[in-house]
Amino acid sequence: MNIQVLRNVFARNERAAAENREAFDARGITCVNILGGAGSGKTALLECVLPQLARTLRCAVLEGDLVTTRDAERIAAVGAPVVQLLTDGGCHLSATLVQKGVESLPLEELDLLFIENVGNPICPANFELGEHLRISVLSVAEGGDKPSKYPLLFKDAALVVITKCDLLTHSNFDITAVSRDIWRINPTAAVVTTAAFTGDGIDQVVEWLIAAHRARRPLVAPANV
Amino acid sequence: MNIQVLRNVFARNERAAAENREAFDARGITCVNILGGAGSGKTALLECVLPQLARTLRCAVLEGDLVTTRDAERIAAVGAPVVQLLTDGGCHLSATLVQKGVESLPLEELDLLFIENVGNPICPANFELGEHLRISVLSVAEGGDKPSKYPLLFKDAALVVITKCDLLTHSNFDITAVSRDIWRINPTAAVVTTAAFTGDGIDQVVEWLIAAHRARRPLVAPANV
Repeated sequence: MNIQVLRNVFARNERAAAENREAFDARGITCVNILGGAGSGKTALLECVLPQLARTLRCAVLEGDLVTTRDAERIAAVGAPVVQLLTDGGCHLSATLVQKGVESLPLEELDLLFIENVGNPICPANFELGEHLRISVLSVAEGGDKPSKYPLLFKDAALVVITKCDLLTHSNFDITAVSRDIWRINPTAAVVTTAAFTGDGIDQVVEWLIAAHRARRPLVAPANV
Repeated sequence: MNIQVLRNVFARNERAAAENREAFDARGITCVNILGGAGSGKTALLECVLPQLARTLRCAVLEGDLVTTRDAERIAAVGAPVVQLLTDGGCHLSATLVQKGVESLPLEELDLLFIENVGNPICPANFELGEHLRISVLSVAEGGDKPSKYPLLFKDAALVVITKCDLLTHSNFDITAVSRDIWRINPTAAVVTTAAFTGDGIDQVVEWLIAAHRARRPLVAPANV
């Protein structure tokens, strides 16, 4: 009986995820699901890339959180359309909640939709939201053992962003060893090192996002070509 | 039907938690559940306090992780009896898993049993393990907004340990503001600031643990008085 119930939950989520992806595809939108632990730097990364991306692409953000609107306020402050999705204590975003969230966004006017998942290195990886790409965020301060300890977080990431690299001299985090661990789990992941405090590496993430969007646009919206 | 299934899961866990607590009480053991996000510094805290505690109290550790034994190896290296509890991808420890873990520990020879929960700021807080006390760990690098964003993590903590304070000058973490946020959620929590790299504040955590164990020992094992 337990298994049946869980199956229903996953099946309902997968159905909603497929509907979301279809809606994004029809409009040529690239949807990016950002995953990572609490305090790994997901919101700070968005605060850095959004102003730069705005020169080239029209972006919006769905912000996941348990109970507050703090992250949405930070995103609104850099001028991007944003909707706060509250899980009321739940440990991951669901595709149905995303479905409700996009109702408030001007989908026809978007190129790139970011979904910042709840800060949790475990549960969100199990729930598709309708995204085309996943970005996993890992901070230097969290420690280099995280890819081995949370492999699911990194397994399906197209890009892994290592954040807070300004703290490298204050930690025993080894970029080379961590990259090797990531590629052992996910050989095709791109790995970029950044520091939101100094701005280091942000350009590279911006370039990666623009290229990722351009690479898939003709494939997903043939009717528009 | 969903609700019924969830109730059964919680009821089974609560029953096992009560049995664990009874077993600890009968032996005068104080059980401490350590919660916090991935990379918040739970294992490093244990590495620091265990050698000092060993002068006064007999300690052991149950280490929670998804798939690796890395943390148990670190604890074994400082000389404490340790059992690795693997959740196989699960996002929290359960009281039944703890029940199995303690079978491998010399309970009759222990004063203090630490359970290091899975690195996750959300799910573990919902599952009692049979602990007498909770310690919540928050690192400076995670950011000061975490008590507001993850109130359940802090609500039942007897002690909140703020870790990685050697990074304070590299962040905008405000100890006073964060303490105020913690006390708004949990007015009776003790808050201690530490840095495993420098050893700052570790003595204070050790003193707090010794006092916490001594304060409850006569209450929980009157037959031994």
